[in-house]
Amino acid sequence: MDLKELRQRAREKLKGCCRVCPECNGRACAGEMPGMGGIGTGAAFRHNVEALAAVHVNLRTLHGIRIDSVDTRLNLFGRELSCPILAAPMTGMAFNAGGALTEEEWAGAVVKGALAAGTLAMTGDGPDPVMYRSGLAEIGHRGGLGIPIIKPRANEEVYRYIDLAQEAGAAAVGMDIDAAGIIPMARAGQPVSPKTPGELREIIAHSALPFIVKGIMTVDEAEIAAEAGAAAIVVSNHGGRVLDHTPGSAEVLTKISAKVRDHMIVLADGGVRSGLDVLKMLALGADAVLIGRPLLIGAAGAGEEGVTLVLKTLGKELKEAMLMTGCAGLSGIKADVAAGVPAAVQLG
Amino acid sequence: MDLKELRQRAREKLKGCCRVCPECNGRACAGEMPGMGGIGTGAAFRHNVEALAAVHVNLRTLHGIRIDSVDTRLNLFGRELSCPILAAPMTGMAFNAGGALTEEEWAGAVVKGALAAGTLAMTGDGPDPVMYRSGLAEIGHRGGLGIPIIKPRANEEVYRYIDLAQEAGAAAVGMDIDAAGIIPMARAGQPVSPKTPGELREIIAHSALPFIVKGIMTVDEAEIAAEAGAAAIVVSNHGGRVLDHTPGSAEVLTKISAKVRDHMIVLADGGVRSGLDVLKMLALGADAVLIGRPLLIGAAGAGEEGVTLVLKTLGKELKEAMLMTGCAGLSGIKADVAAGVPAAVQLG
Amino acid sequence: MDLKELRQRAREKLKGCCRVCPECNGRACAGEMPGMGGIGTGAAFRHNVEALAAVHVNLRTLHGIRIDSVDTRLNLFGRELSCPILAAPMTGMAFNAGGALTEEEWAGAVVKGALAAGTLAMTGDGPDPVMYRSGLAEIGHRGGLGIPIIKPRANEEVYRYIDLAQEAGAAAVGMDIDAAGIIPMARAGQPVSPKTPGELREIIAHSALPFIVKGIMTVDEAEIAAEAGAAAIVVSNHGGRVLDHTPGSAEVLTKISAKVRDHMIVLADGGVRSGLDVLKMLALGADAVLIGRPLLIGAAGAGEEGVTLVLKTLGKELKEAMLMTGCAGLSGIKADVAAGVPAAVQLG
Amino acid sequence: MDLKELRQRAREKLKGCCRVCPECNGRACAGEMPGMGGIGTGAAFRHNVEALAAVHVNLRTLHGIRIDSVDTRLNLFGRELSCPILAAPMTGMAFNAGGALTEEEWAGAVVKGALAAGTLAMTGDGPDPVMYRSGLAEIGHRGGLGIPIIKPRANEEVYRYIDLAQEAGAAAVGMDIDAAGIIPMARAGQPVSPKTPGELREIIAHSALPFIVKGIMTVDEAEIAAEAGAAAIVVSNHGGRVLDHTPGSAEVLTKISAKVRDHMIVLADGGVRSGLDVLKMLALGADAVLIGRPLLIGAAGAGEEGVTLVLKTLGKELKEAMLMTGCAGLSGIKADVAAGVPAAVQLG
Repeated sequence: MDLKELRQRAREKLKGCCRVCPECNGRACAGEMPGMGGIGTGAAFRHNVEALAAVHVNLRTLHGIRIDSVDTRLNLFGRELSCPILAAPMTGMAFNAGGALTEEEWAGAVVKGALAAGTLAMTGDGPDPVMYRSGLAEIGHRGGLGIPIIKPRANEEVYRYIDLAQEAGAAAVGMDIDAAGIIPMARAGQPVSPKTPGELREIIAHSALPFIVKGIMTVDEAEIAAEAGAAAIVVSNHGGRVLDHTPGSAEVLTKISAKVRDHMIVLADGGVRSGLDVLKMLALGADAVLIGRPLLIGAAGAGEEGVTLVLKTLGKELKEAMLMTGCAGLSGIKADVAAGVPAAVQLG
Repeated sequence: MDLKELRQRAREKLKGCCRVCPECNGRACAGEMPGMGGIGTGAAFRHNVEALAAVHVNLRTLHGIRIDSVDTRLNLFGRELSCPILAAPMTGMAFNAGGALTEEEWAGAVVKGALAAGTLAMTGDGPDPVMYRSGLAEIGHRGGLGIPIIKPRANEEVYRYIDLAQEAGAAAVGMDIDAAGIIPMARAGQPVSPKTPGELREIIAHSALPFIVKGIMTVDEAEIAAEAGAAAIVVSNHGGRVLDHTPGSAEVLTKISAKVRDHMIVLADGGVRSGLDVLKMLALGADAVLIGRPLLIGAAGAGEEGVTLVLKTLGKELKEAMLMTGCAGLSGIKADVAAGVPAAVQLG
Repeated sequence: MDLKELRQRAREKLKGCCRVCPECNGRACAGEMPGMGGIGTGAAFRHNVEALAAVHVNLRTLHGIRIDSVDTRLNLFGRELSCPILAAPMTGMAFNAGGALTEEEWAGAVVKGALAAGTLAMTGDGPDPVMYRSGLAEIGHRGGLGIPIIKPRANEEVYRYIDLAQEAGAAAVGMDIDAAGIIPMARAGQPVSPKTPGELREIIAHSALPFIVKGIMTVDEAEIAAEAGAAAIVVSNHGGRVLDHTPGSAEVLTKISAKVRDHMIVLADGGVRSGLDVLKMLALGADAVLIGRPLLIGAAGAGEEGVTLVLKTLGKELKEAMLMTGCAGLSGIKADVAAGVPAAVQLG
Repeated sequence: MDLKELRQRAREKLKGCCRVCPECNGRACAGEMPGMGGIGTGAAFRHNVEALAAVHVNLRTLHGIRIDSVDTRLNLFGRELSCPILAAPMTGMAFNAGGALTEEEWAGAVVKGALAAGTLAMTGDGPDPVMYRSGLAEIGHRGGLGIPIIKPRANEEVYRYIDLAQEAGAAAVGMDIDAAGIIPMARAGQPVSPKTPGELREIIAHSALPFIVKGIMTVDEAEIAAEAGAAAIVVSNHGGRVLDHTPGSAEVLTKISAKVRDHMIVLADGGVRSGLDVLKMLALGADAVLIGRPLLIGAAGAGEEGVTLVLKTLGKELKEAMLMTGCAGLSGIKADVAAGVPAAVQLG
């Protein structure tokens, strides 16, 4: 199956939830939650896409790099990944994806699909216990090759979820702290909330695994995460689904990365749709990116193979973009790859 | 009744005056006066909406705030309000709202609806004496819980209107000085005009109630109002209905607030459509905001209950937005809540 | 007849040449020459409108100005005008206006219509001798109350045209120097060309009447005109009809005016559609403005009365805009009337 | 045949490949490769057009230049050209132009059509040997009046291609180094790749003809080309067809030209659609421009005559634009011709 056919199938399966638009930019689906859209006016989702589009890229072809020698490999949490592209944690297939997949089918597709592409999936958490469990089960079956992300539940519950991740041998574990206001969690009797720096420190201290704090959009909270002992942050506005009118993640990435990247890993997500977008995120200061909606489309269209196809395509595009910008390896992707960066996207 | 149904009903009742657009931004109704549009090309109305949209918001979830402890209460003119969201003064239902409500129905809906939401309504003035009288009567019936706003009539007449407000026990009184050029007033033999600083001082001196000057868009006029003894100003371009091509109020709010907020209360209106917009106005320097068109839609759709529903929804959204931006109370909403503010919106 | 009816009639008479769009901005008619559009892509026409729209206006109502005391009078070339709004020179009714009027009808309508509105018309020149002659004849019949504008013909011919203007007792005379590349002139055996500073000096020396140089878009050419003895310049890109992609006149007006206004009169045209646009042009540094297309629409719709109606409406709007921005007279319209002026429009 | 008819015919012949849009800006054809579109989202193609549109032009008519004395001639590689407008190298008619022309027909039309317009064509290279051969054969038949551009093949092969160009007596020879990632070349067993500065130096050393490096978008690579001995560079993003999201060439031209133009010829292409666009490119620092898509449309519509007509029209428009901006000859087109250049387009 090729991408065109995959997308056509996904369009049918996701009918009512996702139009699989030619350009996935949050316009058609603004406010569709449940569904695939951004919250409210959809501005936060749109800002992700617009901030990336505003970054222009310097074409360079006078160098010694050859397509076969472009190296996109990355060592992350002790594992070698084929490329700096991970699957973002997503759950709620019943209401967000209209039941196109069960929670278990999704978890299977994304964990196995990512492994087949040489990289890793994050799996999610949600109001129904099946959500965390499905992802973790898949990770356990694959020898721990995956990263469960826990909602900001009460600390005692978080400890229990971390313990389960450790038992499953997960590569790392984390928390999408920006889910602190999600209402269906409270409705289901599993309240979430922001975490104080102290609470975060205790959570991280509890974890024997590298800990990722997902949902950082300011320098000050990046520093809190670093001081609390996080191994990594994800610069992310949760796909524009938790607070309307936030900046696009690419808008704030550079200034955050400039402050904390010496001490921790900096991941980013939000609006990444091509290998060139991956390159831009890395040029702005990320070590790797997460992909959300395109992988759900991949899974809806072709299951595990769909996830792999989307990830491999992104990896291939990244390789080509690196060749055309003169980057032999990921460490060579520096700020000077970006050109004509608008004022709002300040290079560090 | 939920908001969707309310809006559907309002759409029917306001047919010919207001389309109840998905995004209320002054485009479809440009120049529709009488009606709900902005004057002329509608640019001043649009600027209100665009200036707010241009303010991005910093997502923060590493803190100790919990949704139940977020405090949106405000003490204004000696009254405690549930949230910093008041009803803006509006009149002219016969020509602006196509008679969907009578002047008395509107006054009743907005004054009672605001009280039921724990906040206050301003009521208006206009060419027909029923306009000022309807609002004031409602305020009187509610023990003075409302704020009548007087048009910039001849001073002697203003004194009489202030006296009536005092007799009704109103919480405060004010003048929408930016209505100085409204032609139907002159046609009805009740001319309005700008006020000199001296005239304004005399008016304010006449009032035993806290006095609000509504329609300030420059630093110099804010200072005139402060020196004349005003208790508050409203940074406002009158919903874009008195002069085309003015800036959006969010564009000028910060520099005005920076100059006068030490000495007086700073309110603002113009394009506020969500609790997040309220948060933005407060981050830019307002103590509270006024809501106009959305409340008229609320009243047209469901009377007093409609007004309450719209206000409570905004209050709830504000609470959620405060949680997600790390603001425990209104005094915690500072300039650093705003991110990526464009050059035109200078933070003080 | 009101403006709505006038515009409806004009729409019928100008069919094929002008759509009489709700917003006259050069989009629908891009490249329509002959016709009413801008040259090429229509960008120069659009820039006129966009540059004015980008200027925001400060609302001010705390002052002592009353609508009846707003004074829009201007003394220009020894004549008192009711308002700073003149008719721009236009010709070529047969090809540009589809023959909706004859050249003589147009000249009559604009010269008489402007006088009836208390102001003056400029009349034009073109490949057919009837064009200059029609305007001049009307001016002669009105005791010289009009200003003929001559194309940049050979100097000897210009002298002859100036002599005719003097004989007609014209208030002033001028040249639209930016018509230097107009091809139909050459085709008709009456070539035009740019003028050297020396040639311009000789032309102006020849004229006993105040001389206006129309079509200045840079500081250096404004200074050449001043040194050559011009009484006035018109900052203008010829309605976007002589060179595509020029700036809008409002974009360059301030820096030009700042350099030469001490020594000469500065007029401006390009995209002025409302009294508020007139106010903006004056705030940016013009002494008065010229109106083009809206007057042709006026004349097509209702002849002389149409011209008067359009001019009086603009004058009335200007008065209202002055009231609402705190300007008692034209000399009170200063740079601080403009707010939020974008970088491209630098205040002097 | 006039341009209108030419375009109508081209629209029919290119059906499925090119819509011959009123404004050729890469929107309708985004991602259409094979075809005429830009790669990926088409952003790089669009940036070319947008960067040129963002450059405004200063109208000047107070000078001694006459239309008949405007001199657009240029001496390039020892040949005098009628104007600074060359044909860009294009190949792949079978897949990019839907077979509307054969490779030989295209080569004949563009080489002969350019000569008839008094200028020169570049011819291209591609996966099928007929591509390079067709262009070179035409150049040979015309006494070498043309410039073959070689893909960045293996150096040994490049030497052979250069030798062929020398044998044909070509005016110059060059390499579109930005084609370093083109996949159909590799598939056809003729791999391309970036070139190291050393490899480029060897290639240029091999050439007895002036050597052009096409596809420079950064200052650093322009300096590499200069140091390697190139006679000229073409600032170009390959019509937006090799890497998405690059800047428009007009965006980077000035800073590149400022660094290297003392030592070499600077050509540019990308989005040039009118003589005024040519003028802009020269004002931003180019010695001459290349035209791509409009010439393919010309050839599809009317063969050799179509190419000539498009080039002559551009030359005529350039002449008119020079008259209206006060430029007697090409050396007079300086940075001060550009006005209101946005920040992204920094003048050197």
